[in-house]
Amino acid sequence: MARRHDIVSGTPRQEPDEVEFISGLYEGKTLGTPLAFLIHNEDVRSDDYVNLAGVYRPGHADYTYDARYNIRDPRGGGRASARETAARVAGGAVAKMLLREWDIIITSHIVETGERIANDTCGGIIECCISNMPAGIGNPVFGKLNAMLAAAMMGIPSATGFEIGTGFESSKMSGSLWRDQWNSDFSTKTNHCGGIQGGISNGMPIVFRTAFHAASSVPQETHCIDNNGNIKTVMLGGRHDICHIPRTAVIVEAMAALTIADAMLLSGKTL
Amino acid sequence: MARRHDIVSGTPRQEPDEVEFISGLYEGKTLGTPLAFLIHNEDVRSDDYVNLAGVYRPGHADYTYDARYNIRDPRGGGRASARETAARVAGGAVAKMLLREWDIIITSHIVETGERIANDTCGGIIECCISNMPAGIGNPVFGKLNAMLAAAMMGIPSATGFEIGTGFESSKMSGSLWRDQWNSDFSTKTNHCGGIQGGISNGMPIVFRTAFHAASSVPQETHCIDNNGNIKTVMLGGRHDICHIPRTAVIVEAMAALTIADAMLLSGKTL
Amino acid sequence: MARRHDIVSGTPRQEPDEVEFISGLYEGKTLGTPLAFLIHNEDVRSDDYVNLAGVYRPGHADYTYDARYNIRDPRGGGRASARETAARVAGGAVAKMLLREWDIIITSHIVETGERIANDTCGGIIECCISNMPAGIGNPVFGKLNAMLAAAMMGIPSATGFEIGTGFESSKMSGSLWRDQWNSDFSTKTNHCGGIQGGISNGMPIVFRTAFHAASSVPQETHCIDNNGNIKTVMLGGRHDICHIPRTAVIVEAMAALTIADAMLLSGKTL
Amino acid sequence: MARRHDIVSGTPRQEPDEVEFISGLYEGKTLGTPLAFLIHNEDVRSDDYVNLAGVYRPGHADYTYDARYNIRDPRGGGRASARETAARVAGGAVAKMLLREWDIIITSHIVETGERIANDTCGGIIECCISNMPAGIGNPVFGKLNAMLAAAMMGIPSATGFEIGTGFESSKMSGSLWRDQWNSDFSTKTNHCGGIQGGISNGMPIVFRTAFHAASSVPQETHCIDNNGNIKTVMLGGRHDICHIPRTAVIVEAMAALTIADAMLLSGKTL
Repeated sequence: MARRHDIVSGTPRQEPDEVEFISGLYEGKTLGTPLAFLIHNEDVRSDDYVNLAGVYRPGHADYTYDARYNIRDPRGGGRASARETAARVAGGAVAKMLLREWDIIITSHIVETGERIANDTCGGIIECCISNMPAGIGNPVFGKLNAMLAAAMMGIPSATGFEIGTGFESSKMSGSLWRDQWNSDFSTKTNHCGGIQGGISNGMPIVFRTAFHAASSVPQETHCIDNNGNIKTVMLGGRHDICHIPRTAVIVEAMAALTIADAMLLSGKTL
Repeated sequence: MARRHDIVSGTPRQEPDEVEFISGLYEGKTLGTPLAFLIHNEDVRSDDYVNLAGVYRPGHADYTYDARYNIRDPRGGGRASARETAARVAGGAVAKMLLREWDIIITSHIVETGERIANDTCGGIIECCISNMPAGIGNPVFGKLNAMLAAAMMGIPSATGFEIGTGFESSKMSGSLWRDQWNSDFSTKTNHCGGIQGGISNGMPIVFRTAFHAASSVPQETHCIDNNGNIKTVMLGGRHDICHIPRTAVIVEAMAALTIADAMLLSGKTL
Repeated sequence: MARRHDIVSGTPRQEPDEVEFISGLYEGKTLGTPLAFLIHNEDVRSDDYVNLAGVYRPGHADYTYDARYNIRDPRGGGRASARETAARVAGGAVAKMLLREWDIIITSHIVETGERIANDTCGGIIECCISNMPAGIGNPVFGKLNAMLAAAMMGIPSATGFEIGTGFESSKMSGSLWRDQWNSDFSTKTNHCGGIQGGISNGMPIVFRTAFHAASSVPQETHCIDNNGNIKTVMLGGRHDICHIPRTAVIVEAMAALTIADAMLLSGKTL
Repeated sequence: MARRHDIVSGTPRQEPDEVEFISGLYEGKTLGTPLAFLIHNEDVRSDDYVNLAGVYRPGHADYTYDARYNIRDPRGGGRASARETAARVAGGAVAKMLLREWDIIITSHIVETGERIANDTCGGIIECCISNMPAGIGNPVFGKLNAMLAAAMMGIPSATGFEIGTGFESSKMSGSLWRDQWNSDFSTKTNHCGGIQGGISNGMPIVFRTAFHAASSVPQETHCIDNNGNIKTVMLGGRHDICHIPRTAVIVEAMAALTIADAMLLSGKTL
């Protein structure tokens, strides 16, 4: 069967993603109480997973879920499925509306993707920039703003690395080179620190990058293991992206928006 | 004045670091109630900071603290000082005692340090390995084990990057290469994922690396800015490490121990 | 129009309360991940509230919600409606299944209700007993078990008082009389303390009482106030219980079950 | 030996209660970072407790601590000692300074104490009033302001009951009587609800009462039990108050101040 792929997003799924609001909205405005919504999964094809009961795919969370809970729903990746992030994107859209009131803007772009090999998948690196960020947001020991952002990014499925400002390259720089020199308006001539000092924003743009591995569901015969320890070769069904990076950039922005909105409110900012 | 440096730790400070326990201990055993301790700072030299009132050093959190709190104690780096981490190391020592009951072992080594240039400072990269980690520890969406570790590491002063398993390199690998192939005992032939799948440990060693920038306090004339926006050249006193990486490795292990002990207990493990 | 009242529950509502599970269940078993469910409100009659936009009823939370959020959905009592507690009862049913594994049993009975006057409502007092409670559950300072129970009970709509063991009467007793004398099996001859000492269960039954005021929606002409400060006389529609106490006893048990289940898990108990 | 008692506070202890600030203060102002302080216990007489190792007093938390932690420090009541509340009173003093900025005033008075019988102890009831409370503070489901206050009060040693507004008496009132009638300025003619509706303050004074049992340490021969189940008659030493109610009123105010300050900040109020 031919697999149709969406050129932009690299996904064979048809996901209308209609949101049904259950609570917290009245005449188009939020009520201050929890905004609950449902995104029904219209395009369920559990048959794709029928031969996966009791079988652990490589590179997936099948085995770890069983180790954690001693029970698992085999119909799809469950909460480890990237579909879980739809709720984050919806929440992030609300957070962005709040951030707009403070003129804070969040953008992302793809720094790098792996090569696209036939019948395989690729990962990549996404950079995110938070502009018009006020100084003084975050906390000095617990809840450092960079730690909050790192946790938010590493919580996105398939994230493998996080760096802020000059990041891993900073480990090679001398202190006199790394420290950002002042302008007289308290901005800095460089932004090696990525906009955060001591866990607190300094008013420069916050810039960070997150690395993601390629999706583990590859349209190839795959060596799985069953829960008795027998290796089984399975042709994986399910519908998985060749390159998830363009779609993941949306999640990066959403998680950044939620994190910054939290930090603003926790630092006492009001509208 | 000649500055004496400890060869191993690269620090000119004399810090006996004697711990006084205030509560939670009785006849050498913890009581289950909070273990409170004080580490008195025996080697205070606030005079070193006397000309820094109202002055923001580059690469330090002086400015961001003022932006956050509108008030600041100028005698030293306050909570942004690496001295703050002494409490983490003491806490980590207790966490390691608990982890030992489960045979979990945490080690670290220095992967790389920057060059040591005269009158300057250098950073580096520290790798940490958690051995004998049981499978099934962590959470699938909120409180993913990799996110908890990332937050713990990025909360260490001067951290700029975090990666787990193959980390940033994984962004270049195809999915069929990245996904770790099974052995029949549920271990894997490679450990590209670094021991965590879907936020939950898989029983392989957890391996991650953290990058740190060089200390910003360099024994050179330094362009600071005062709170009126005037650039001032100051010869920084205070006692700061040439290369803080050997000492920071101890903090990495302590934070890893606290994080893993938390995750074990939150996942319902008992002794 | 004649108002039909259910004799047992004292309510004119027809609430089939069908529960639709959205996540966390597979083949009749919980998966360890969040158990989400929807209870659709089949018997909505928003028309009853059409003349209440911008009007604050006495004894209701209409005014305080506006003071808190500056916006309010006038169709019913919103989150202050006792319908909100249906979710607590459903959650409590799950908690009771867990408690049954530890043989812990929660029961309640009505100690007292107010007189039932024509065209008016009445309140009452509910006693709850937790039997087979193991000793050693709870915490000594923060999260005392009695404080957790008090917060759970006072969080039920229309609660006005909470007391444990001999409660308010204990304030009149001398210390030598109040302190429960030991039996040789560590049970006590009396249970004035209600099963909790220093925030921690002592193995005796936990016994407490909660007082509830009568429902404020009375089928009489009612002096409301609009948001301009004008007093308005309104004949309140909506369907409200004459005596909510029998139905509230179910909520008391549910909240007790959730609280005790939490306390068991937080004290390290496993199955 | 004659026991000297302070007339006002009814205590035989000499407690200078000198506070040593460890962090968070600079030149008489708080820094926004944790305000840590030590109150050294100058008047320790552990000898009073020397015959109490492995012995459980009636009405005390000795047995429950052992049940919870399997280890206990026998030198005094530990965290169950009312001395623990000194930290709450110090914290409450800071919270009161914050509340003063919003003109919120917290007062308490003793409603009732038990009779003072020779060689015995007595309890009582304390009423607390929070004046100038703004409307709109608190939360509708989790973190209801009345639930927060109930938890705070029931967390004070020896608390046995809590009621707000008309409290337990409200259970006897009809709904038409209970519901507070409006004045045209949104105040109410009565305050049966005690200033909170649906978990949120309504701008009327918040009024609640807390009941406390008498202290269990009575200067009489006392039947204790050892950890082998043997009843032992002990003449209790230690220094305990005849009537702790005057001292406990100070704790009531402190806990109320901490709770209201929390609720103000959580509801988004700023200075």
